Amino acid sequence: MRTLICSLTLMLPLFAQAPPAPPRLVSPEVLPDNRVTFRFRAPNAQKVTVNRESAKPLEMQKDEQGVWSVTTDALEPDMYGYTFNVDGVGTIDPVNPLMKPNLLGATSMVHIHGPATIPWEVNDVPRGSVHHHFFKSTVANDYRDMYVYTPAGYDPKSKSAYPVLYLLHGFSDDASGWTAVGQAHVIFDNLIAQGKMKPMVVVMPLGYGTMEVLKSLRDAAVRTKSFDGFRDSLLQEVMPQVEKTYHVSKDRTQRAIAGLSMGGAESLRVGLNYLDKFAWIGAFSSGGVPANFTETFPNLDSKANDKLKLLWIACGKDDGLFEANKKFDAELSDRNVKHQWIVTPGAHTWLVWRRNLAEFAPLLFNNSPKT
Amino acid sequence: MRTLICSLTLMLPLFAQAPPAPPRLVSPEVLPDNRVTFRFRAPNAQKVTVNRESAKPLEMQKDEQGVWSVTTDALEPDMYGYTFNVDGVGTIDPVNPLMKPNLLGATSMVHIHGPATIPWEVNDVPRGSVHHHFFKSTVANDYRDMYVYTPAGYDPKSKSAYPVLYLLHGFSDDASGWTAVGQAHVIFDNLIAQGKMKPMVVVMPLGYGTMEVLKSLRDAAVRTKSFDGFRDSLLQEVMPQVEKTYHVSKDRTQRAIAGLSMGGAESLRVGLNYLDKFAWIGAFSSGGVPANFTETFPNLDSKANDKLKLLWIACGKDDGLFEANKKFDAELSDRNVKHQWIVTPGAHTWLVWRRNLAEFAPLLFNNSPKT
Repeated sequence: MRTLICSLTLMLPLFAQAPPAPPRLVSPEVLPDNRVTFRFRAPNAQKVTVNRESAKPLEMQKDEQGVWSVTTDALEPDMYGYTFNVDGVGTIDPVNPLMKPNLLGATSMVHIHGPATIPWEVNDVPRGSVHHHFFKSTVANDYRDMYVYTPAGYDPKSKSAYPVLYLLHGFSDDASGWTAVGQAHVIFDNLIAQGKMKPMVVVMPLGYGTMEVLKSLRDAAVRTKSFDGFRDSLLQEVMPQVEKTYHVSKDRTQRAIAGLSMGGAESLRVGLNYLDKFAWIGAFSSGGVPANFTETFPNLDSKANDKLKLLWIACGKDDGLFEANKKFDAELSDRNVKHQWIVTPGAHTWLVWRRNLAEFAPLLFNNSPKT
Repeated sequence: MRTLICSLTLMLPLFAQAPPAPPRLVSPEVLPDNRVTFRFRAPNAQKVTVNRESAKPLEMQKDEQGVWSVTTDALEPDMYGYTFNVDGVGTIDPVNPLMKPNLLGATSMVHIHGPATIPWEVNDVPRGSVHHHFFKSTVANDYRDMYVYTPAGYDPKSKSAYPVLYLLHGFSDDASGWTAVGQAHVIFDNLIAQGKMKPMVVVMPLGYGTMEVLKSLRDAAVRTKSFDGFRDSLLQEVMPQVEKTYHVSKDRTQRAIAGLSMGGAESLRVGLNYLDKFAWIGAFSSGGVPANFTETFPNLDSKANDKLKLLWIACGKDDGLFEANKKFDAELSDRNVKHQWIVTPGAHTWLVWRRNLAEFAPLLFNNSPKT
């Protein structure tokens, strides 16, 4: 990687007559057959591996220029996070601008393009927009942000208000997670263009009731403060702002809440305890489903079935949280709370959550979903 | 840095009873006196330095845990880019989520907070929003994006349309540069709240007429193709979209164009050749000011003074592009084109451009600016 100093001096020869620079590394290079070559310059390193999402670390070989490289087998079209591990120390791929923002450590990402039918491939369809809003949170006592997707042709004067989905990221993501990594806006654009999903407004707030939880996740009191603060900020700060700014329905049957991992747990905690506000709930690979069901959902029983339009619980078979989610499925069944329990391939990764979203979003705000 | 694998397994103990992890590194740590401690874990490295924007590389020392660290002198409040150099290889700070996105290599960033009067400090003032739009560019033959800032209280039905500034990033930035690194939206929020700047819409498009230029900057034909393509995309694609979507004036006296480095040159090339469309022009540390003035601006002479409300050319004294900008100032003077030539401290860095923006934006759309 060029250092900062180098990247600044790069500007100077920009339009002057400078001697040619050494050839720039290309990494990752996606080959026509979907094998991928990763490259990393580290002349003094002893061992370098590439660690890819949902794959074992792959050892790289050094050439005489000090460039380490390895070529994978052909990969399924998808977007894979990865890092290099250099003598035991992880790092991003310095020449690859495609990154996964993350509050506990960014990683690089390689996109292996596939057919236009893949929901997260950009197609020549009408495109929605993503709006970035900033506000002072009294609940969390900080300045924070949220993102709002509006579909193509969004009309603030349309006859009927838009349904609205509150879509929550996971632990260590920031509020941009669902768009920057999840490609949620691209998925929505495609599904709406195909007539598979109702045009809706999608709100992606910051999922922490307190930012302390990023440093003190193992502290139960901090976790509770974060869950409670998130709920209060959502209900008292985010939703009123959204309903003031956007032409969205305030009818509970036109409101959904869903999320991944920590955001899945938040969707359950808020959604199932506020059925007067939400009728559609999705939880993908939930992390933090409660150990004590009755304590978290004191009023939840079969009476909820009249209010719930959809309760959709998904988890990948290889996810470390699978058993906890399966237990939650059983507890819902024990209490005769109608729901869908979706078991998919995959682990605790965005490969699963992009697919979850593409499967879940079309179910929303349809009058007769299977529940 | 935790590897990707680790960051995924991090999720698992999230809500389970896992053994405590080793203490997480804190880097950068801003001390109360504005000294900064940088830390980087690399047990096997021989030499590690921290390379900070506008500063000499600083050697770090390794402790018995393999953690390298160094503490700077007290620094002026600002936002500084930096990287680590590990045995000759640059890398970001893996535990710091604050980053400068860049198409040729992201870097880390440390924010040393200062008094509320610093224009890029977030204050408790009404906040504008940043809208992310996506479109297919026929000119560039790709899918691309742009960002649009709307001020707090933006009213699409207001009596008079908003003035509009087209604000252009530099070479290697992406369309998010002015917000993610330049904090332009924060600067505008503050200046508008203080009554120092007119509320306006600010459009931040992608500044490449062809993405090829990122790989082939030294190819004059590609550079020309990029400049021309940028101009065509701006005039034919970006401006019509903006004028359709936002309540902005189409009056040339209510339109400005400005940019940094490559974007400065673009502002001059488009602005000065299209005075029928723009009356306010700003160029910060321009990279690519033309070697041949007459060829680039065939019609530019003192007749332009009737149309130009402001031509504002700034450059830092320590910028490698200072002489080229100074020459351009002289050429404008030779042709009796009225302009302001602003010499500031500083080099080719965002430390200069944030200040440029805070100085330039208040001049816009005032009836009697000094020109």
